[in-house]
This record gives sequence, structure tokens and C-alpha cells, in this order.
Amino acid sequence: MALDNVRPVGFLSGVKIVDFTQFEAGPSCTEALAWLGADVVKIENPKMGDPGRRLRPGQPDDDPYYFHVFNANKRSMTVNLKSPKGLALVKDMLRQADVCIENFAPGAIERLGLGYDVVRALNPGIIYAQVKGFGEGSPFEKNLAFDMIAQACGGTFSVTGDPDGPPTRPGISLGDTGTGMLMAITILGALYKRRETGEGHRLQVAMQDAIMHYMRINFATQGRTGEAAGRGGSKVPGVRNAPMGLYPCAPGGPNDYVYIMTSRANPDHWDRLLKVIGREDLIGDARYADAFARLEREEEVDEIIAAWTRRHPKMDAMRAVGEAGIPAGAVLDTMELQNDATFEERGIMQVMRHPVHRDFKMPGWPVRIDGKPPMLAASPVLGEHTEAVLSEWLGLNEPAVAALRADGAV
Amino acid sequence: MALDNVRPVGFLSGVKIVDFTQFEAGPSCTEALAWLGADVVKIENPKMGDPGRRLRPGQPDDDPYYFHVFNANKRSMTVNLKSPKGLALVKDMLRQADVCIENFAPGAIERLGLGYDVVRALNPGIIYAQVKGFGEGSPFEKNLAFDMIAQACGGTFSVTGDPDGPPTRPGISLGDTGTGMLMAITILGALYKRRETGEGHRLQVAMQDAIMHYMRINFATQGRTGEAAGRGGSKVPGVRNAPMGLYPCAPGGPNDYVYIMTSRANPDHWDRLLKVIGREDLIGDARYADAFARLEREEEVDEIIAAWTRRHPKMDAMRAVGEAGIPAGAVLDTMELQNDATFEERGIMQVMRHPVHRDFKMPGWPVRIDGKPPMLAASPVLGEHTEAVLSEWLGLNEPAVAALRADGAV
Repeated sequence: MALDNVRPVGFLSGVKIVDFTQFEAGPSCTEALAWLGADVVKIENPKMGDPGRRLRPGQPDDDPYYFHVFNANKRSMTVNLKSPKGLALVKDMLRQADVCIENFAPGAIERLGLGYDVVRALNPGIIYAQVKGFGEGSPFEKNLAFDMIAQACGGTFSVTGDPDGPPTRPGISLGDTGTGMLMAITILGALYKRRETGEGHRLQVAMQDAIMHYMRINFATQGRTGEAAGRGGSKVPGVRNAPMGLYPCAPGGPNDYVYIMTSRANPDHWDRLLKVIGREDLIGDARYADAFARLEREEEVDEIIAAWTRRHPKMDAMRAVGEAGIPAGAVLDTMELQNDATFEERGIMQVMRHPVHRDFKMPGWPVRIDGKPPMLAASPVLGEHTEAVLSEWLGLNEPAVAALRADGAV
Repeated sequence: MALDNVRPVGFLSGVKIVDFTQFEAGPSCTEALAWLGADVVKIENPKMGDPGRRLRPGQPDDDPYYFHVFNANKRSMTVNLKSPKGLALVKDMLRQADVCIENFAPGAIERLGLGYDVVRALNPGIIYAQVKGFGEGSPFEKNLAFDMIAQACGGTFSVTGDPDGPPTRPGISLGDTGTGMLMAITILGALYKRRETGEGHRLQVAMQDAIMHYMRINFATQGRTGEAAGRGGSKVPGVRNAPMGLYPCAPGGPNDYVYIMTSRANPDHWDRLLKVIGREDLIGDARYADAFARLEREEEVDEIIAAWTRRHPKMDAMRAVGEAGIPAGAVLDTMELQNDATFEERGIMQVMRHPVHRDFKMPGWPVRIDGKPPMLAASPVLGEHTEAVLSEWLGLNEPAVAALRADGAV
């Protein structure tokens, strides 16, 4: 079905990617490239495929959503990498490929016989990308990592949560997708140069190291204060400003809050805010004259604002404060975001229509290209494109594929 | 000084970027491109430059760190965009450029006379990139946004913090840098295609929309449960597993914790963990036979582990548990990360040596290219490269530049 608020994007059309990745850190990277038009072929084992297809061993498999969100717009081909014919087939594909990428446990790709030296010998122009938990040369190089491990070791827990409480996990999987995005950027840089030189490269990123990229603002705060960056609840530690933070809204549900931030650099913000909340009587009051005076009375200032916000639903509060030119944002949860039709109208949320699973509305690639975001396509069924890929990439005909299948190679 | 653990990277050498961005969402994007070798020229007003150079009005300007971390490896040129000659000069640069990018408040670039239609007319092949708080067509399209506003409205607050507590801000500036990374990927995609077609494009991203990209795992959880994704403290809501979470370590400081995660799919993890903590007596105990049984007794299970972790420093605990093949990670803060020499040895942390400000160790681009990450160079002094850029890009000689300076254009 053609939708007029999204578009197919061919920025990377013709780019062939052999994708050995699983779960999220690798798949989020190749999905970004698929949204921009690359031919991303997931190489999956014929039995179960990417373990991200089925995250709950022993449970009925009613969770295709995790797989959907990280594998849209890709193709799937099954190959038994432990059979000699399967391995030979993948090597033929690697000879054709522009990029290959893997995020297996440390050492696994080498044990499969597809380490960098092997693949480079097959195809000196390939961009060979690897995502691991810890960096080469790190004392923890051989350790397993999942998102939470990378976030703990990369610093995000230490800066999230209440100032007096324990470290807290940011509720997003930045250790995975955050890492995938940095690898996607680097692959694209290498591809750009390769158009000129034909040169291949080995690219490696570790999740712990990638997390530190997203922690740079915290390192900057530490640079100024000389102390480890701390936790601030809903405030930003190191930013001395008032009012700034979350204010409770009607009717008092767990996410009924609005974030309001007045600028220290723009003294008008405070006066405008007082007008919005009907406290013109405080305009010019020396007790609240500037951000530093207000900081001295932060609890009092917060209560002045909360007395107003508590009487208003968060969207109304966001609208009223925002229209007065003061940065304001309601805390929205996933259900509120999914139910807000404006995201689908703008092509930011799109419905995945899938041949096997029910329809699923999810965020697509959020960047508009000439006014429209890239069009979402279904995540592949396991092995859905085996024949098509073998035909298009390697020129194999139906009997040749049937023979490979009979051999258990695909 | 040549360092043997880092390397200059020329993936984007020859790519000319006119960079109007400020603060973080835009600068984080262009910095990624600069690390990969693009010529990123910051266009700054001659008086104060990027407001990110000086975040604390009324305070002594002793905070170059925020600017450093988002502007390494770039050049700076001062231009008075409100003078006709300055505007004409920038238009000459835009005629030469491959990319231009801005993240001003909504409507500002058009008021400067540099909206998309104007720039496209000057250079039909340009990639014109814009970062805003809310998307075109959103009810909040004209609103201002900062990182916290985008994070509140994009969902991250709603999934961060204690299950019984208020929404919490993840302590990283994902609304800014997270958005910048998605724009960098899209710009690189457009540049790749442009080598073939010469075509320009308009690219637009909103911070609220970009945050939703990083929230996909939470949307997946909602898809399965039918309820808004919630908050889990240090656990992951929707993932039913035990043991999994933060455990307190010696000597009990605010970040003395280790994250331990046993896999449901690998029953050996629990037995191995029991060995590490000296509780072999519990191996085979039916009360803890599998992840589901352990979930029933989660508090008890957590206490069995904590009784051991409390007696060990977090790095020792991470080492012992990790070596047993169980994912484990110490919670590290910015000071611990900065003081860990292994990051500098591997080129992940690099020291910025600056002509004006003191040395500053910061995370560089974490992806290794043929074994080494890109080399960090200093953030530019305001206007440091005005002459050089005017000479290299536009062929202007010294007297021509002096005349522009006398006119107040640069």
C-alpha cells in the first residue's frame, strides 16, 4: 500500500550487506542502513534464527515485537554455518558484499572460520564491522555483555536516579542501539571513501566505549567541578537554575508531570511563567529576582509552580507554558505516544503489516528526507528470502537451491 | 604529537560542511563527521560565538568543557550574518559546500535569509540538514526544546526510575546527542548517493521523534503486554528473570554496586554463580531450580547474592563473576572512568591539548578503524580559522579578508 506521508529511500541502493548480527546492538545498526536502502541480508541458522526472534524460552512465542523493531526492511536467509556447503555459500556471498557485520560473543566469528583475516583474503574491499561488549585490549575483552552491563560499566547508571538513591538504569537500551548508531556512522564513512578508493577496512566498537560517547556532557561537568558527575532525579546536576524540573499535574497518575525549564539567560521566562500561572503579584519580587535568588528558595519556587500545575492536565500545562515561549514538555508514556495520531500522520510512527504476525505500530526512522521519512517494511520471516538472495547475489537457480536445502546447507 | 594508538581518518576528506549549529544536538552531529575527516566549519557570530562556549551567564567563563566535547576537530570562522557582506560571504561558502546544517529555534534560519529554498537555489546539490525540538506538522512545531523537554515528550522519563517513584530523567543528554547521531547517519547516506547522482536533499529531524527511535524496545514490550512500558529501577520491566539487577558492594559508596545478569536460556549461569559466591550447597535446590522458581523468591535470591557482593569491592566482584562466564558489570562513575588508564591506552579516552585552555581528557570517537580510533584535535578558538577558510574555500587573500574585517562582516 502506498502511503503519501512516507517514501522509499534509495540512498544506499546497491549496497550489499551480509548481516550476522543478533539481538539489538548489531541489528539496530543494519536496520538503519536498511531504512536508507541497503540490501541487508540476515544470515540466520535454519533452526531458530536470530535468538532475538524468541526471547522467552519455555514461553509461548507470542513476542515478535522485539524482532520487528530491530529488523524492519531487512531480508532473511537461512544458512547452516556449521556445514561445509553452508560456509562455502556464505563465503561466496562475502566475495560479493560491500559490508559484513557481526556481534557474536568474543571469539565466535573466528571459531566459525569467518574472522577478519579470512574474510579480507576473500574480499580485500570489504568493510568488516564488529560489535562487542568490551574493547580489544580491555581487561574485560573476553567478557559477555548485555545492554545493562555496558550501561553500568559505561557510566549511565551512575548519573541516573535520585541524588540520595542508588544508581539507576536509564530505561532505554542505549548500550545496544546507541552503539549500533555509532557503528552505522562509521560504516557509512568507510563506504563513502570506498567509492573513491575501493579500500576495505576493519571497524570495531565496544558497547562500554560507545556508552562513554553519550556520557560526554557528564565528563564536561566533571571537568568543571573536579568531581564525578552525580545524579539529579529530574534535575540536571551541575546546571544551577531554578525553576527547572518536573511538576505534578492533574489527575495525579504515575506519568502526570510536566517538565518546565526557564532559561537563566532570558530573565523574561520567569515573568512570563508567573503570568501563565496567575501569579503576576510576584513579578518584580526581589526574593525571586534572578535564577540565583530563586535557587536559594528552590523548594518555595517549585511549590508556587506546582500549585498551578496540579490543577491542570499535563498536555494543557505543556501547551500553556510552551505558548508563552518557555520550554515545557509533558512526560509521555509509550501508550500515549502510540495513541497520539499526529505521529502516524507525520510518518514518524508507522504500522508494520506482516504476513504472519498481527499489525504493529512502531517508530520508524525519524529523519525526513525531502519532507518524508523512509517507508517501513515488514521484518522478514525466518528464511523468507533464501531463494531470492541466492538467485540475485549468486545466480543460483531453483534446482541448485533445492540441492543445498536437501544437503542441510540452507 | 603523534600517538601510536590513534590515527587520523580521512573517510570524509574533501567533504565541506557549513555548520550553523549550536549547543549539542547539531554540534554532536557535525563532530561525528569531523572525526571521520570532513572539513566542518562552524559559522559563529563574532561577538560571542556558539552560546555553548559559555553556558553560565554572569559567571566567570571557566567552562570550556561543554564546548570541547561537542566541537573537537572542527574549524571556527566568525561571520556577522546580519551584515549584508557577511551574509553574501556565507552564501558564497554555501555554493561550495556539500552539506549545511542548523539547529536554530524554529523560523530563525528563514529570518536570517538562509532558508532551504534560498540555499537550494544557490546550490541544488547541497544536503541541507535541520534539527528541531518538535517535528514539522506537530502541534508543538513552534515550541522551543532542550534535551530534557525532548526526553520528557519522547518517553524516556516514563521508563526511568523506581517502579513506585516519579518519572526520572536519564542522566545522559540523549535528546541532543541521540538526535545528532541519527542525523549524521542520514547525511552520510545522502552523501553516498550524491557521489553517483549529484543530487541535494533536505533532511529534517525532531528531537522528540528521535527519542522514540531509542524507545523502540519499550514499544516492543508494550506490544507484548498491551500496557504502557513502565519503570524498573535497576531491573528491566517486562523481562521476567532472576537474579538480575544491581547488588551492593564494599565499601558501600554511592556507586559501589555490580550488575549481575544470569541468562534464563542458560541454566548453567545460576550454578556457576553459586560456585563463585561459595553457595555450592544450593546447587540443585528445587526452590531455585529455574528462573521462574527464582522469580517467586526474588528477594531471597537477591539477598543470597548481596550477602556475598557486600564483602567485595565492585571491580573484584565484576572480575570474579565475569570470569565464571556470567555477564557482570561494575557501576562506574565519570571519575573512575577517567582515572582508568586502560581507556587512554586504547585511544578511547584522549587528551585534548588546547592553545588556550588546559589539557582535558575526554572520550573521542569510540569506533576503531583498522585497530585505532580517530585522533582527537582541539576544539577551535572563536574565529581561529576565519582567514584559512576564506583563503581555502573562496580564494580570498589577506587584504580582502582585512577589508571584510574592517567592515564588520567577519
